[in-house]
Amino acid sequence: MASSSRSRLSPPPVPIELHVSNRQKLLNSLRHHLSESSRPLHGVVFLQGGEEQTRYDTDHIELFRQESYFAYLFGVVEPGFYGAIDIASGKSILFAPRLPPDYAVWLGEIKTLTYFKERYMVSMVCYADEIAGVLHDLHQGSGKPLLFLLHGKNTDSDKLSKPAEFQGMDKFETDLTTLHSILTECRVIKSDLELSLIQFANDISSEAHIEVMRNVKVGMKEYQLESMFLHHTYMYGACRHCSYTCICATGENGAVLHYGHAAAPNDRILKDGDMALLDMGAEYHFYGSDITCSFPVNGKFTSDQSLIYNAVLDAHNAVVSMIKPGVWWVDMHILAEKTILQSLRKGGIIVGNVEDMMVERLGAVFMPHGLGHFLGIDTHDPGGYLKGKERPKEPGLRSLRTARELEEGMVITVEPGCYFIDALLVPAMESSKTGGFFNRQVISKFKAFGGVRIESDVLVTANGCSNMTRCPREICDIEAVMAGSPWPAQTH
Amino acid sequence: MASSSRSRLSPPPVPIELHVSNRQKLLNSLRHHLSESSRPLHGVVFLQGGEEQTRYDTDHIELFRQESYFAYLFGVVEPGFYGAIDIASGKSILFAPRLPPDYAVWLGEIKTLTYFKERYMVSMVCYADEIAGVLHDLHQGSGKPLLFLLHGKNTDSDKLSKPAEFQGMDKFETDLTTLHSILTECRVIKSDLELSLIQFANDISSEAHIEVMRNVKVGMKEYQLESMFLHHTYMYGACRHCSYTCICATGENGAVLHYGHAAAPNDRILKDGDMALLDMGAEYHFYGSDITCSFPVNGKFTSDQSLIYNAVLDAHNAVVSMIKPGVWWVDMHILAEKTILQSLRKGGIIVGNVEDMMVERLGAVFMPHGLGHFLGIDTHDPGGYLKGKERPKEPGLRSLRTARELEEGMVITVEPGCYFIDALLVPAMESSKTGGFFNRQVISKFKAFGGVRIESDVLVTANGCSNMTRCPREICDIEAVMAGSPWPAQTH
Repeated sequence: MASSSRSRLSPPPVPIELHVSNRQKLLNSLRHHLSESSRPLHGVVFLQGGEEQTRYDTDHIELFRQESYFAYLFGVVEPGFYGAIDIASGKSILFAPRLPPDYAVWLGEIKTLTYFKERYMVSMVCYADEIAGVLHDLHQGSGKPLLFLLHGKNTDSDKLSKPAEFQGMDKFETDLTTLHSILTECRVIKSDLELSLIQFANDISSEAHIEVMRNVKVGMKEYQLESMFLHHTYMYGACRHCSYTCICATGENGAVLHYGHAAAPNDRILKDGDMALLDMGAEYHFYGSDITCSFPVNGKFTSDQSLIYNAVLDAHNAVVSMIKPGVWWVDMHILAEKTILQSLRKGGIIVGNVEDMMVERLGAVFMPHGLGHFLGIDTHDPGGYLKGKERPKEPGLRSLRTARELEEGMVITVEPGCYFIDALLVPAMESSKTGGFFNRQVISKFKAFGGVRIESDVLVTANGCSNMTRCPREICDIEAVMAGSPWPAQTH
Repeated sequence: MASSSRSRLSPPPVPIELHVSNRQKLLNSLRHHLSESSRPLHGVVFLQGGEEQTRYDTDHIELFRQESYFAYLFGVVEPGFYGAIDIASGKSILFAPRLPPDYAVWLGEIKTLTYFKERYMVSMVCYADEIAGVLHDLHQGSGKPLLFLLHGKNTDSDKLSKPAEFQGMDKFETDLTTLHSILTECRVIKSDLELSLIQFANDISSEAHIEVMRNVKVGMKEYQLESMFLHHTYMYGACRHCSYTCICATGENGAVLHYGHAAAPNDRILKDGDMALLDMGAEYHFYGSDITCSFPVNGKFTSDQSLIYNAVLDAHNAVVSMIKPGVWWVDMHILAEKTILQSLRKGGIIVGNVEDMMVERLGAVFMPHGLGHFLGIDTHDPGGYLKGKERPKEPGLRSLRTARELEEGMVITVEPGCYFIDALLVPAMESSKTGGFFNRQVISKFKAFGGVRIESDVLVTANGCSNMTRCPREICDIEAVMAGSPWPAQTH
């Protein structure tokens, strides 16, 4: 890495033993589960990795990103692989695609099986056209060998994972019900090696957010902020992928929670007096970050901006101070809502009793999304709802991507927000139940305000939590950093 | 756009009338075809736009990019649309997805039908759930109304385009054989408005290549060159998409034609003495560019590097000087091969008679890819082979993405290259037919050389051609630019 004054970071080596220990963790869980259910400790966990995709009918190849469960267990960056883990022996086997000779001319050296065995630290590597034979040879007992396949629902997308398929699969028994929930639960609690990658993704993304804050100028377009962020995380952090499409919202766009996609493409011109809400996070060797910073584009908070910003910051800090094992995430969401409502009431935007507001779910008018979600190989990491657990039904709460009790080793985003969204405010102000809470004169000033979100990635520790995100959060710190002060701030 | 010393460019307004004229061109061609075939001039061209994709089973949304035929006719950047053109009246109709009310909260303001009508300059906009009714009302005659659907093979991918589908389609006649080749042929000849976008994509990408040349340093990683390119084209050119995944090859990686994908991820460290081969092009409002620059990473060509570079540059220039309407593209490929072989012979790398080498297809050992391809909304723009035309079978020639005669208004890449690819050189040196052409002692010096490619995007004009790419190409100019001289060079 060339030295550069723009970053103090450099991409760490990728620890492939991380995936060895992920496999061991799955083996332990699965064996434990089988013992508990008085089932024999044999069979093979079998997953299919992702395939390269082309765009529509063309030969335009999209940049490949591995399927997340496969990435978790094997860490393979190439498309077209399969992977197996033998439950009895613990042996791990990768099956590589057999590439045509002209691959070497167009796409690069054809790697040997030995290369993949060493690189990915598995017991054995064979070709993908040998799966049926190899798995049969592994089988010791009588009857058809048993495959544990991945089949279950992602509770954010409601989509089903795709169980592996291969030629000759009809000669195997398959179990579609056991693996998904056990493997998902393995992903929920992060190991130290996983945490080191999430920490690096956080470090480089935090630094990139600060780079953007320092270079933002009235008159720029929103996508230029995205471009600066992407460049910093790739140039200095080797992050080729982002965890998600950047949300670079300024002015009234801050009230659009998932702004930034193709139909809302970060193309507004920044105006003096705008707030910016930038939700951007890079990914490093599959592990992501998810960070939101909010600040005035001209570098100085107005009193209205301070009011909303501090309402959200108080909620963020209140939640972070409460997080520890055993805490119910729904309670944290409610705490954030209440903290925001109290600040809005103090600021004269709403009037009345906060408990009454909570009964009417007024918090969800200002913060219609959930307080946060698990983060890992997916930005919305799976496992938010244990099998059979239902989502809450109330506005705001029903958007929670998890309603679990926190456990040590979970990484969860804390992302309270306060937005002025016409589509929610107008009906709430017209409703007989909630209309009385609004100070119409004051709130009218915030019509084009947009919103504020503050989002950190937090690790639940044995006694509390640790914030992995390293951005300036206090107004004085943000103003200082935007004016050119160093960050982290020098000790006085 | 904030002013910046790093770019003299700013993104031009997007001319939506470009798509109006694309539709008119299709109408003219289709009506002409129907008349010629004594078929009635009625029916409706009906296309389905692209849908947003999520990654595997997750809710991770990939950044949407419109399907190219739909983009050509309608210019719509949003997912979930359908489009119709009535052949008799010329009326154009867009069908927009009916979005749920909470779209406004999460994804942004729900645009009205009037907004889309004005933005996309069509006759009428309805909802996608109204297609069957609207198209029925359009129908004047008796019997089932006729739809011309897109169904045909992309000759680069061998994949079929997906004909539109909608509820109630069984009440229509469908024609699957007429539209594809006529619409594809419309795309082959570019209008002035299309050319203006391809020119801008070329201008910003050329400038970005120069930015990379000026900032490259021994010790960097290849992906840092990609990052600089992406940043420049997005920051100053508003190019959110690239035409294709960047190929940033240095040293021996220059011999991998499509290096840079996930399994070969631009991650080598640049060494003193390396050549770089950078194939990178940005896309602006769907229209792309495709540019390759090759240069020594330390800024100074060695004599070996000059020999190979000038062999390729001579081929590039020879082809550019010959291009005009009526020229057969296969002849241009052969001209490039011959020019390269002559230079390699002069440089002592190969020995013998060049005509004999051509008979044995020795050119394809050094340049195994085709000389170039059409460029437009797709990097490999369709239409390279007219219906029923077969690809050549010979090595090198069979990789040609077109074997047509050139016509005014075509945009085609001219991208000769010379590579030292073990997988091709070793068998060719062992073969009794070609082994005698190689000077083993000299060629051994080039084992880790990699390769050189020079690629420009060229417009065929009435009497010749015009090169749309604006990068320094002569060795003296590259060395000067890398040393900090302005480009375009000042007149003396």
